[in-house]
Amino acid sequence: MNPLSASRLSAVRTGRVETTATAVLTVPTSGEGFFEITRDVAQFVAEIKARDGALLVYLQHTSASLVISENADADVRTDLVTALRRVAPANVGWSHEVEGPDDMPAHIKSMLNGVSLQIPVADGKLTLGTWQGIYVAEHRTLPHRRDVVLQFIGSCRNDD
Amino acid sequence: MNPLSASRLSAVRTGRVETTATAVLTVPTSGEGFFEITRDVAQFVAEIKARDGALLVYLQHTSASLVISENADADVRTDLVTALRRVAPANVGWSHEVEGPDDMPAHIKSMLNGVSLQIPVADGKLTLGTWQGIYVAEHRTLPHRRDVVLQFIGSCRNDD
Amino acid sequence: MNPLSASRLSAVRTGRVETTATAVLTVPTSGEGFFEITRDVAQFVAEIKARDGALLVYLQHTSASLVISENADADVRTDLVTALRRVAPANVGWSHEVEGPDDMPAHIKSMLNGVSLQIPVADGKLTLGTWQGIYVAEHRTLPHRRDVVLQFIGSCRNDD
Repeated sequence: MNPLSASRLSAVRTGRVETTATAVLTVPTSGEGFFEITRDVAQFVAEIKARDGALLVYLQHTSASLVISENADADVRTDLVTALRRVAPANVGWSHEVEGPDDMPAHIKSMLNGVSLQIPVADGKLTLGTWQGIYVAEHRTLPHRRDVVLQFIGSCRNDD
Repeated sequence: MNPLSASRLSAVRTGRVETTATAVLTVPTSGEGFFEITRDVAQFVAEIKARDGALLVYLQHTSASLVISENADADVRTDLVTALRRVAPANVGWSHEVEGPDDMPAHIKSMLNGVSLQIPVADGKLTLGTWQGIYVAEHRTLPHRRDVVLQFIGSCRNDD
Repeated sequence: MNPLSASRLSAVRTGRVETTATAVLTVPTSGEGFFEITRDVAQFVAEIKARDGALLVYLQHTSASLVISENADADVRTDLVTALRRVAPANVGWSHEVEGPDDMPAHIKSMLNGVSLQIPVADGKLTLGTWQGIYVAEHRTLPHRRDVVLQFIGSCRNDD
């Protein structure tokens, strides 16, 4: 279909769309760093008996973000924190300093990483890649409680 | 289920998925900066009588982007513009210069911020956090008209 | 309704939500660079006879990313690669070096660009802007095979 590429499409799996299910996951963070929520999200998908559809993960904050990244070597997350500090350093003369030197860099990191992502669900399973984990990235220095809205749209085993 | 975290899941709210509603919001910008569309998006959600589902916001351009960020202190947006200029400076020898020195930096900023985001709707309301606003980030120097596709998938009060 | 803006909303197009259709697109890459999948994605939308709804594009990897960017001048993609190398350089003392000097920069680029995006479909067509193309951005030096999950939720011509 694309004569220039050797891309290949698998068989198509179809289902009915029936249900929306929404909940809020509250995630305590201990300060700057990455906090994995993969198991919490998978638990939500299992609890609502999701079959096929899309899971929306939405973070209700502007100084933290959502990241899908490597879940094996913890050094990766250490380096991601370092990389974000390179991109958005503190103490370079930001106008917005009223909430502390870590606040404006946190807003920049949140903008670049984003707060909204979607993961397909197929046959009851999140279609994460082998090495993918879902993380709340905390960009503030102090601990926070972060609210993540989880919303599934699709078919559930309950719908039968 | 995650023994290492104290994450906590709220009660689950469920609904039927019935309707898709799509429209285009045209946003005039006055040049580089952030243009809030939160009220326009909320107005769309109200107008279609959305109840539960997901709102997709999609920007049809490659030199602007969509950002969810702080809606209180205007200094934050000033600093976000500065931060993006640090990450993607003009006049550093880009190959693509035919559309002016602000064009290639605009494409880089658009790539990093993204042009696609989704926000859950629950009980008729966008589940934005307290301090979150939705912005079209204009990365070109001159004014532009930017088209944003709004698409809701879920249940509406009309569906009853 | 937003007295401060001259934003304007088009007529609203509505449809029924009926079907979810999911497949995997496998994309071979020849090493660092941008690989366009717009036609493959459009082909999927045509094949499932999508009418109105949202197409989720999801990349199952942590050292590549998904980007919507300019599809005209190839210099833009060359500059995007350069820009990403500026933001996430190799050989600056990353902790995670076990998979080679290009691996940690690849994870950083994947985090910033993201691996999840959604595009509205209206009346059977992806609502891409005139100059927008969908790309798998390969951040590793060597060739890879990248799996992209495509999932449509909405109405299909088959549903009648």
